[in-house]
Amino acid sequence: MTLNDHLDTAQADQELFELLRIPSVSADPTHQADMGRAAEFLRAKLDRLGFEARVDPTAGHPVVYAERLKAPGAPTVLIYGHYDVQPEAPLEMWTTPPFEPTVRNGRIYARGSTDDKGQAYAHVRGAELLLSQGELPVNLKFLLEGEEEVGSRNLEPYIREHQDELQADVIVISDGSRFAPDVPTVTYGLRGLSYVEVHVTGANRDLHSGSYGGAAPNPINALASIIARLKDEQGRVTVPGFYDGVEELTDQEREMWAQLPHNDAEFAASIGATALPGEAGYSTLERLWARPTLDVNGIWGGYQGEGSKTVIAGKAGAKISMRLVPGQDPERITELVKQYIPTLAPEGAQVEVVGLHGGQPVKVDLDSPYVQAAGAALERVYGKRPAYARTGGSIPIVAAFRSLLGAPVLLVDMGLNEDAPHSPNESFALSDYHNGILTSAYLLQEIGQLR
Amino acid sequence: MTLNDHLDTAQADQELFELLRIPSVSADPTHQADMGRAAEFLRAKLDRLGFEARVDPTAGHPVVYAERLKAPGAPTVLIYGHYDVQPEAPLEMWTTPPFEPTVRNGRIYARGSTDDKGQAYAHVRGAELLLSQGELPVNLKFLLEGEEEVGSRNLEPYIREHQDELQADVIVISDGSRFAPDVPTVTYGLRGLSYVEVHVTGANRDLHSGSYGGAAPNPINALASIIARLKDEQGRVTVPGFYDGVEELTDQEREMWAQLPHNDAEFAASIGATALPGEAGYSTLERLWARPTLDVNGIWGGYQGEGSKTVIAGKAGAKISMRLVPGQDPERITELVKQYIPTLAPEGAQVEVVGLHGGQPVKVDLDSPYVQAAGAALERVYGKRPAYARTGGSIPIVAAFRSLLGAPVLLVDMGLNEDAPHSPNESFALSDYHNGILTSAYLLQEIGQLR
Repeated sequence: MTLNDHLDTAQADQELFELLRIPSVSADPTHQADMGRAAEFLRAKLDRLGFEARVDPTAGHPVVYAERLKAPGAPTVLIYGHYDVQPEAPLEMWTTPPFEPTVRNGRIYARGSTDDKGQAYAHVRGAELLLSQGELPVNLKFLLEGEEEVGSRNLEPYIREHQDELQADVIVISDGSRFAPDVPTVTYGLRGLSYVEVHVTGANRDLHSGSYGGAAPNPINALASIIARLKDEQGRVTVPGFYDGVEELTDQEREMWAQLPHNDAEFAASIGATALPGEAGYSTLERLWARPTLDVNGIWGGYQGEGSKTVIAGKAGAKISMRLVPGQDPERITELVKQYIPTLAPEGAQVEVVGLHGGQPVKVDLDSPYVQAAGAALERVYGKRPAYARTGGSIPIVAAFRSLLGAPVLLVDMGLNEDAPHSPNESFALSDYHNGILTSAYLLQEIGQLR
Repeated sequence: MTLNDHLDTAQADQELFELLRIPSVSADPTHQADMGRAAEFLRAKLDRLGFEARVDPTAGHPVVYAERLKAPGAPTVLIYGHYDVQPEAPLEMWTTPPFEPTVRNGRIYARGSTDDKGQAYAHVRGAELLLSQGELPVNLKFLLEGEEEVGSRNLEPYIREHQDELQADVIVISDGSRFAPDVPTVTYGLRGLSYVEVHVTGANRDLHSGSYGGAAPNPINALASIIARLKDEQGRVTVPGFYDGVEELTDQEREMWAQLPHNDAEFAASIGATALPGEAGYSTLERLWARPTLDVNGIWGGYQGEGSKTVIAGKAGAKISMRLVPGQDPERITELVKQYIPTLAPEGAQVEVVGLHGGQPVKVDLDSPYVQAAGAALERVYGKRPAYARTGGSIPIVAAFRSLLGAPVLLVDMGLNEDAPHSPNESFALSDYHNGILTSAYLLQEIGQLR
């Protein structure tokens, strides 16, 4: 008999529905009491499973912490998830009420179904499944926060404060999407971020372009010329030292990713783009997951209203961010950018560069036993070899786990992009939920064998 | 005896003050009745001087038209001015009430004192001065509108409708500033304008820069690269054909302007700029008055709020205008720009260029007898040779006069920049007002000798 035969899906669904009915919208102060209810729901459940479970207050919404440390000599696993959800607005776009979970076509429709109650609860049920067969094969800790959707601002202090208690050999997070419906995915890398704001000043006020055009410095033209020079014809960032230390893709990675069901034309069509420009010499997935890049995220200056106004603005500005990859340090990159951009200033333009924030890139060694354990668990659930992917985004809390707890982070995403997290009619396939429970259980079994 | 000896300054001042007390703010509907009062004030005055004078209704505020055609064989002069004024706000910034003219340090402080009631009324008093000595030496027409500060939108239709009646050999406008306090100025050229808006589209929506950065087209980066390529390292506009037909500066102009009391360092300091970048090979005044240029007047795209948002915008846009000089046609330039800009679009960027509006450049031949007459008149008033300048701005109504009436336009500005038109504490030096009256009278005498 496999674990699969012991999975009580009816009970698992009913409990998740109960959790989904609690409108734990962290951004909305009127849901303060609901946040407490959701935290208590999870604490009580973990307590019933024999965890030492508690609800810890923070400066914001509480953290649920639970641990069951009954596998001496076995690795310790920390599972992170969050019980808060995005606001439901616009309500009129929902086919069925966001906090009344409804199953249609094999999908649970509810706010939080995939992000992240469904995925977090799959781990709770995964532990329950194992416990129904005996003791857990690992020492297991749960850290379930209530502020992920509002920036996790109290989580890092919490981790610092409980650094000893939270020690683990590996951290597991399920809070995202698999590469594609038929592709079980282990995500072993995230890009980092360096985000700056550039301010360009010309004259000390807005000027009339008739009286001054041809002699006054124009900060918008200057800003455009600066931005244009930040990437070369090959799509490479021109900041000196930017690529120093960048970890090159391995042949293994290039080959693996080339096998993935990705099609440039379909990808472009999915965003309505006519091309997918980027750094020469790399495939789209390579550029998205393993290459640093630079994008202007916002720009402003002068007159933005209807019609024409003949003004030469005194100021202009832009927000510019760089996605970073392993080998790049956000602080160093921000420093390089702050040094370089002013050197591009045309005559008459005064340039100031302010660092806004950064995030460390993260990568777990593909050969790591934990990555291998995750792959093996997924293969047991899906009967096929999983994809080993990275992702282009940054999850700031991952870097915090990394630096504060020093443990590798495994991203075992159970959802799909089509689940529409953050959007109306968010959903989670019942099969993904059930496979998620099995994945969690098998993963702990695999990790348990690493002692 | 010169005309100067017959100038009754007390009476001239008193009448102007009466006109300045009427709050004829064209932009403010609550001043509708005041607009009519100001128009009637002028009509009645011109009627008393023996003009055939009337107030003509328009779709907006009325036009005052008056003519005295009693100099058979002599040239016909049309004097244009406006009796409407800018709103007075912010009222608390005025030292004395805007519609209670007050003399301090030899200056009349009042809204409209320099722009344009004072300058327009100087011409009325100039005619009166001449009439006190006999018949006018020219056939004289006055066209005084009430919508200059709100875009003169009903003036062009009015000119079209009264095209025959308004025929003149020369048009005289006094509605601006002399080059400098000690420099009587004849302005013989204005730049034109071509104004476009550029829209750049990448994906069909805003995208997350983590998930898509490195593959999605970024319309802001694309727009910056387009703008950066619109001018070369020499500050020259790169649009093919842009300089075709541009009238080069004459040696005479370069020499004249080099004599003017202009200092680059002071000019830069006056606008708080660290440099005065522009087209190589031309002095600042040459670039401002006689060279075409290109400035971005506004730019927008992506996130402009506080902090950081990791978005790749779907769209970005900019307003771009070119100041044009004689030899350039706004429609042709707009067409060239509409053809050229899309060729600069990077891969994945879709570009649309919309023409917003244009204005013809204007130049009166320096050797024209009217320019010479204006110079001679100023020399009689000030006892020194005037400056022959151009100006960098565009006055759309000048091009309309030019094209509809076919007559050269003389700009005989009586004010100064320090008069602060459009600002609180607008003023007009009494000496400039009195010299303006004399200039008007001498100018008509000089033109009268051109028969």
